[in-house]
Amino acid sequence: MAKKTAIQPTREQNYPEWYQQIIKAADLAEVSPVRGCMVIKPWGYAIWENMQQDLDRRFKETGHVNAYFPLFIPMSFLEKEAEHVDGFAKECAVVTHHRLEPGPNGGLVPGGELEEPLIVRPTSETIIGSMFSKWVQSYRDLPILMNQWANVVRWELRTRMFLRTAEFLWQEGHTAHATKDEAMDETIQMLGVYADFAQEVMAMPVVKGEKTVAERFPGAVSTYSIEAMMQDRKALQAGTSHFLGQNFAKAQEIMYLDADGQRQHAWTTSWGVSTRLVGGLIMTHSDDDGLVLPPRLAPQHVVIIPIYRSDEERAQVLEYCDKLTAEVSAQQYAGSKVRIKVDARDERSSKKVWKYIKQGVPIRLEIGPRDVAGDSVFMARRDQGVRDKANVDRQTFIQTVPTILEQIQSNLFQRALDFREANTGKVESRDELKAFFKGGGGGFALAFASEDDREYEETLKRMKLTTRCIPLEDNEETGQCIFTGKAGCKRIIFAKAY
Amino acid sequence: MAKKTAIQPTREQNYPEWYQQIIKAADLAEVSPVRGCMVIKPWGYAIWENMQQDLDRRFKETGHVNAYFPLFIPMSFLEKEAEHVDGFAKECAVVTHHRLEPGPNGGLVPGGELEEPLIVRPTSETIIGSMFSKWVQSYRDLPILMNQWANVVRWELRTRMFLRTAEFLWQEGHTAHATKDEAMDETIQMLGVYADFAQEVMAMPVVKGEKTVAERFPGAVSTYSIEAMMQDRKALQAGTSHFLGQNFAKAQEIMYLDADGQRQHAWTTSWGVSTRLVGGLIMTHSDDDGLVLPPRLAPQHVVIIPIYRSDEERAQVLEYCDKLTAEVSAQQYAGSKVRIKVDARDERSSKKVWKYIKQGVPIRLEIGPRDVAGDSVFMARRDQGVRDKANVDRQTFIQTVPTILEQIQSNLFQRALDFREANTGKVESRDELKAFFKGGGGGFALAFASEDDREYEETLKRMKLTTRCIPLEDNEETGQCIFTGKAGCKRIIFAKAY
Repeated sequence: MAKKTAIQPTREQNYPEWYQQIIKAADLAEVSPVRGCMVIKPWGYAIWENMQQDLDRRFKETGHVNAYFPLFIPMSFLEKEAEHVDGFAKECAVVTHHRLEPGPNGGLVPGGELEEPLIVRPTSETIIGSMFSKWVQSYRDLPILMNQWANVVRWELRTRMFLRTAEFLWQEGHTAHATKDEAMDETIQMLGVYADFAQEVMAMPVVKGEKTVAERFPGAVSTYSIEAMMQDRKALQAGTSHFLGQNFAKAQEIMYLDADGQRQHAWTTSWGVSTRLVGGLIMTHSDDDGLVLPPRLAPQHVVIIPIYRSDEERAQVLEYCDKLTAEVSAQQYAGSKVRIKVDARDERSSKKVWKYIKQGVPIRLEIGPRDVAGDSVFMARRDQGVRDKANVDRQTFIQTVPTILEQIQSNLFQRALDFREANTGKVESRDELKAFFKGGGGGFALAFASEDDREYEETLKRMKLTTRCIPLEDNEETGQCIFTGKAGCKRIIFAKAY
Repeated sequence: MAKKTAIQPTREQNYPEWYQQIIKAADLAEVSPVRGCMVIKPWGYAIWENMQQDLDRRFKETGHVNAYFPLFIPMSFLEKEAEHVDGFAKECAVVTHHRLEPGPNGGLVPGGELEEPLIVRPTSETIIGSMFSKWVQSYRDLPILMNQWANVVRWELRTRMFLRTAEFLWQEGHTAHATKDEAMDETIQMLGVYADFAQEVMAMPVVKGEKTVAERFPGAVSTYSIEAMMQDRKALQAGTSHFLGQNFAKAQEIMYLDADGQRQHAWTTSWGVSTRLVGGLIMTHSDDDGLVLPPRLAPQHVVIIPIYRSDEERAQVLEYCDKLTAEVSAQQYAGSKVRIKVDARDERSSKKVWKYIKQGVPIRLEIGPRDVAGDSVFMARRDQGVRDKANVDRQTFIQTVPTILEQIQSNLFQRALDFREANTGKVESRDELKAFFKGGGGGFALAFASEDDREYEETLKRMKLTTRCIPLEDNEETGQCIFTGKAGCKRIIFAKAY
């Protein structure tokens, strides 16, 4: 008989529903009364804050500065770059009025119509570009390396918490350069920053690659992405970095005088990751008992659940726990104090235990009178079975807690990497591609194919597959496109996708 | 003849224009192509980030957690609290459509009309309250202590950078409690957090007080604020904390079962500070040469300008500067490393010197071959005259840099406090009040007056004065209202205001 799990259904029974249940059980987020918008609850938001903090440091280390640009974009700005507006026009929140007035039947109606409608930013290339065009005069003003942390809105029809919501939180980097090479180097550098963050901090292995023609960002010359494999073997695009060439510089007139006194268009890039990463994090590590958090992102590293039967035991146990908390939080992990707390709430301890299992806290200590007497702790690790617990000498625990956290971090990464590798394979024909995904199986299939995937769009649609990216690494060999027969093609990753 | 100043006009010549010129000279922000919205540039945004970091720590230390709620509020939600909607209806950005469609003459027009218009949040009591009503069932679910960092939009007609913009950045705390006393304690606690932050970090003295009846937040039972005096002796409301009573709990049905099994309405509070604080910071400390930053908020504490005439000198000076930078940044100030950088750009040194004076960097070092030879630094402090420079032994400088920074911090506070005290006075009649503000003079006038300022609204309007607050401290004495003759009134601060 199957073991009873805390999350119902299990991943195997119904993956999409399991995902929703994890979010609920870990108290990460909730649907809001506003269509397609979610409420990010404290535990989910704390994970996002940890992501922000680490990414922000990486952006600053690579020379970027933060700034803030308006939420609204005049409709005419969006129209300047034709491909760009085509890409976003269908999903824009449009502000048309600037007040509410008493309506005919007692209620309110929009009043004060705007001369020009404003779009709630779906992304900020156009508004930021218009400022860059003022700031850039000479080659001495370049490069401009900016980032903003902001909310954006894309009116999606089908939404899913964290993965695709009408409003989401993100960062968008925008840079302008004097040369094509510099802009391309920046594009690839930021893709690398994202990949390092995903792997080192989220413990989520990713493939860096270039997007195919149909998957490019509207208005970009080329788009690069990091792609991760979720536990249902579907791909998640986790971050993108765009080489915009001179397209936006031309639309926004970002021009500079070069060293020879010639007027030139600048070269721009943009790059972003969003709260979607939280969705990727959930689907990479979590199990049928709840969320599993890599220690580098866990809002709490260690939680202590005191166990007692009498007031006397309670006092004794809590004193021991408080002392332990002070000692453990004096330890450093990944550049900050170990985050530990005692949950002394008046609540059944089994309920507390399950709360933290479901919330994915990396290390759980259950401490009762016997542990106090033995000067030890009773420890469970979230990367191991919920019933695997070990008795550890208190001093040993204090000294090794950073090591244990780092072990959990690397175990999670290795497990996810093994899973991806076990579900990645090369295919050499359309039949092999079909066979690879037969019966709901699959993962990442690597096949020689034309980077212009518009040529085999219909075939892919029938197979319910998408092109993910043309991997940048270990992808030297070329061959004939399995769809068009075109020669000299690199391998592309095919997968089902979020 | 007057000394030539870097900022034209001076404060005395034209204070509002001086303020705009400071923002420009320090490169803090710029108007955007979107009506009433500004672009916060890197130097201005870094100041805001430092504010955020310190406030966020204070919120967390007082038990609050961060979360994120939707940008949009359904129009019907706003309508539920009558006073609230009255207060905000006239300045709401209204989203009515969710896409752009090809229009009749080639351009785009809004398409896909929404069934119910959405308001871009001017504040989030209604949407957050609707979530609280789901989360609160029993007294065990209380208190809820939440905060969000967000952008909000109020369609103001007359805008001014940082002080009043259509979109601004802020934090809004929202809490729900089981009892009136607890909610009132929270309201006063957060007012105290704001006052401590303003005084300790911004070096901006503030008066904590209760708002008069006409100045209350729409829907609040009582509103408290911190009020600061700017250098033109006008008052700036720098933060507010609202005791909402059960008003929003009733409108949003936030109810709980108490320990006796009775259904009760919760008691709520809300409190916020915004990027307006940056405006207050500018107007509290800056002088006619530019921005002056208190060290606790300065993005850079120390800047080094290398001075040299030949390549040989350059190499020698830069080596010395780099070594100094490493040594100084190993020092701690206010819990983090001293932020120091060398500006080695290929640019005239006098131009660099003025750049940092205008940007308000607390300590400026000019280092040339003579300083290298003498193992010393040539130092200027931004809180002193631009020509006051001192030769300091290098080792002494390194060891005392945290002390110097803290001296600057406290000097700025003391100077602002002295200014406020010199411009604050008690007045005992309408005539004295008039005399206090005669000929553009004035400041904070303390007079006995009825807290219901609707009773003397017209008189105040004629005098171009506003009630700022009823101070909470040193305000025991009562007397007759100078306008209405009503007995038992406390003193209220009257001032011109932003």
